[in-house]
Amino acid sequence: MRVLITGGTGYIGQHLIERCLSLGWETHLILRPKSVLAPQIQKERVAIHIHDGSTKSMIEILQKAKADCVFHLATYFCAEHRAEEITGLIESNVLFGTQLLQAMVETKTPLLVNTGTAWQHFNSAHYVPVSLYAATKQAFSDILQFFTDTKKIRAINLMIFDTYGPKDTRKKLVPFLLSQAKKVQQGESLPPLELSLGEQLMNFVYISDIIDAFITAFELLKKDQSITQEEFALSSSELLSLKDFIRLFQESIQLSFPLDFGKKPYREREVMLPWHEGKRLPGWAARISLKEGIQLTWQSLESS
Amino acid sequence: MRVLITGGTGYIGQHLIERCLSLGWETHLILRPKSVLAPQIQKERVAIHIHDGSTKSMIEILQKAKADCVFHLATYFCAEHRAEEITGLIESNVLFGTQLLQAMVETKTPLLVNTGTAWQHFNSAHYVPVSLYAATKQAFSDILQFFTDTKKIRAINLMIFDTYGPKDTRKKLVPFLLSQAKKVQQGESLPPLELSLGEQLMNFVYISDIIDAFITAFELLKKDQSITQEEFALSSSELLSLKDFIRLFQESIQLSFPLDFGKKPYREREVMLPWHEGKRLPGWAARISLKEGIQLTWQSLESS
Repeated sequence: MRVLITGGTGYIGQHLIERCLSLGWETHLILRPKSVLAPQIQKERVAIHIHDGSTKSMIEILQKAKADCVFHLATYFCAEHRAEEITGLIESNVLFGTQLLQAMVETKTPLLVNTGTAWQHFNSAHYVPVSLYAATKQAFSDILQFFTDTKKIRAINLMIFDTYGPKDTRKKLVPFLLSQAKKVQQGESLPPLELSLGEQLMNFVYISDIIDAFITAFELLKKDQSITQEEFALSSSELLSLKDFIRLFQESIQLSFPLDFGKKPYREREVMLPWHEGKRLPGWAARISLKEGIQLTWQSLESS
Repeated sequence: MRVLITGGTGYIGQHLIERCLSLGWETHLILRPKSVLAPQIQKERVAIHIHDGSTKSMIEILQKAKADCVFHLATYFCAEHRAEEITGLIESNVLFGTQLLQAMVETKTPLLVNTGTAWQHFNSAHYVPVSLYAATKQAFSDILQFFTDTKKIRAINLMIFDTYGPKDTRKKLVPFLLSQAKKVQQGESLPPLELSLGEQLMNFVYISDIIDAFITAFELLKKDQSITQEEFALSSSELLSLKDFIRLFQESIQLSFPLDFGKKPYREREVMLPWHEGKRLPGWAARISLKEGIQLTWQSLESS
């Protein structure tokens, strides 16, 4: 198998590279000139292609990669955008992907596993974006539909909620809770953590389950030729409120730090009930329980 | 009134500028460095702002314009795209508009009349794009929805079918038929025009009716504060097949040239039945009949 991965420097991307290598697949990456791979990825085991931003360069990359499948994970994420991020958001989340699709057409690369976000469905509406980030993801879905409708490209869109696991340097809840726990373990006395009421439901999926889903989606596209474009939600079976999630976190690692719920207001577009109407990916379910996932993540931090 | 127009070098844009000036409105234009205004627009009557491509430049322009309403017509059109058009399509049809929306937020510019295309609805589906051009228009609609949902921007999307009228230099059906008629009038003997079977229904609206719709949409946004985002179809009441339209054209100007229907195949995604589920813009209907519109267009060519 030959696969091409975009966004290989990101959290999910680096784990997907490791999985593809462990499956013995020839793994190609598209990187931007200044991208830096995670240190655990051995550069000699992957084929790196630098994209100069043009459609021509993208076509040349896909010609060389001759991939059976493209895993498109490259994204520019921001919870609340600033004016100076507009160009980067559109270029990364819309233009880059459209160039990729055009290059797939030109090089007869047939299959795509794309990464969407459940935040395209604010309060579970058909399409109401939580953020401009989510709106750009929907914008790309619209363009993808044109290509799957009219060209010989078949695609699966995986709609991701929250992800967590080892080696996560993103500014997200779990890495933050881990850093708090580490301080407590080292004997630091922490002031109470100021939080909202914490009643929003969270949908966390452990990283290895997410990676399973990407592989399962590729297998499904290969097996079922009738799929032209399908969307699946990578939802956990354990929906907990933020409050309960943090309590479970503390119980799981047997360390606690003081919490002050209700101190902060909810965000302007806080998602209280995550989207729950997405289809399940056939052959996939989240297998790692939250307790187990939290423990694995903590142990990985301990041993590093 | 102060209005800001994007796409003022285009066919609809130049007619909208003339209308705004005739209404005595202070008319601001956003142009790209190399844009050229139509010769009939007197430069001293409009305020021209050059956009350098950045979000910052867009914000500065909107700060200066202090517009009551933005008419967003700038677009990059192509019926069937080539690889080298991808970047231009996304930058013009998605990035530019997103920068415009962000600048409207930053400068508290409240109202937008946006231009969509009925070709977002191939065979009248909710959303199935006829072309990548139409897909980029839908992509921008999704981004617009984020801004109208979360920011103090109110917008009307006008979904346009086919337009025609005087001073049209676009590579479209009516200018082509006019050039054929002109040759016949000058005594040229023409070979039969090779056409498809011609059974696809056409939805042509005369340019002054289109301009009426833009003004009506602005008035509606001012009057009805409850509108946050609405979409209206600018549909003619006379749907004719291509065959009947060309016959009506010849009758209306009392000139005929030989036609050969059925000689060419339909295009790959030929729209046989234009979208017909769009809402009508309240207070607007196409007033110029096809016969009258064709005669006005021909007379304008005769007198020029």
